[in-house]
Amino acid sequence: MRILGIDPGLRTTGFGVVEKHGSQLLYVASGTIKTNKEAQGNLAERLKVLFDGIHEVVERYKPDTSAVEIVFVNVNPQATLLLGQARGACITALATCNLPVAEYTALQMKQAVAGHGLAKKEQVQEMVKRLLNLPGLPGPDAADALGIAITHAHAGHSMAKLAAATDLQRTTSGMYKAGRSR
Amino acid sequence: MRILGIDPGLRTTGFGVVEKHGSQLLYVASGTIKTNKEAQGNLAERLKVLFDGIHEVVERYKPDTSAVEIVFVNVNPQATLLLGQARGACITALATCNLPVAEYTALQMKQAVAGHGLAKKEQVQEMVKRLLNLPGLPGPDAADALGIAITHAHAGHSMAKLAAATDLQRTTSGMYKAGRSR
Repeated sequence: MRILGIDPGLRTTGFGVVEKHGSQLLYVASGTIKTNKEAQGNLAERLKVLFDGIHEVVERYKPDTSAVEIVFVNVNPQATLLLGQARGACITALATCNLPVAEYTALQMKQAVAGHGLAKKEQVQEMVKRLLNLPGLPGPDAADALGIAITHAHAGHSMAKLAAATDLQRTTSGMYKAGRSR
Repeated sequence: MRILGIDPGLRTTGFGVVEKHGSQLLYVASGTIKTNKEAQGNLAERLKVLFDGIHEVVERYKPDTSAVEIVFVNVNPQATLLLGQARGACITALATCNLPVAEYTALQMKQAVAGHGLAKKEQVQEMVKRLLNLPGLPGPDAADALGIAITHAHAGHSMAKLAAATDLQRTTSGMYKAGRSR
């Protein structure tokens, strides 16, 4: 099973692809999708870059399933709204690729990767390197994304339930009203 | 010029389409796209319903441009994150339809529609009804979406600048790094 992990952010979205063979984990790919005000101008263009970037990653690496980090930002409502918009674009991209989307908190990821929920960024990078036998440290965003993919790979039945991973191919059509409903 | 206005929300996203002929405004369509936990289950499926719904509206009514309400929620970070995700899905949908996306605050919309920024929901509904010669009051979500479309129609050069409306067809490709960038 090939798993795509995503660490969403408006400026930098990390992605990581791992393959699960029984109890063994294999590194496939990782990287970042970057957007910035100078290059893309407005929010819509930046969200489209994220959406297109994830579609490109999915086409290239053909994952069977995906998992996204649940991030909480309490700096200010504006920052939270921006992060939410980036997260919305990423999850929409995965959903429109018909991939199941699981969600894990940073705490769950750190527990799965480093053994405790208070692990620092460097510890996550170091443990991801060890678990996947990487020759060097992955960047922080890619490490988080790989960590999310590893979390999903390790997730037993119970954790999968918790994460409410559902298969989008089984989706029912949404309630959708259009037209002259004045 | 045909304008699609969007009032984004995870549960209910309002849309409104108006046509501008010189100084005249004509009502084309309005309605809501609804999602809920019971019908769609998880966040990814709900965001996909919003994305698909907006694509369907764009295909059906073929707007030339779009405008989205900037909403601030200060209830709690969780609510703000949810709204941000819905907004992200909506804007991504418009951007992937290659529509220019302008943004206006509720304040700007109320000033444009009702003449002052403190107008209540009912006043917005009433003014939208009058401005578009509707036979009855539009629902609150559709009214806000029509209000946003009207705001964009009324927006002069200066306001268009303020709203930073940019044409996505002129978009430059995003910086996108993929592959084995350990």
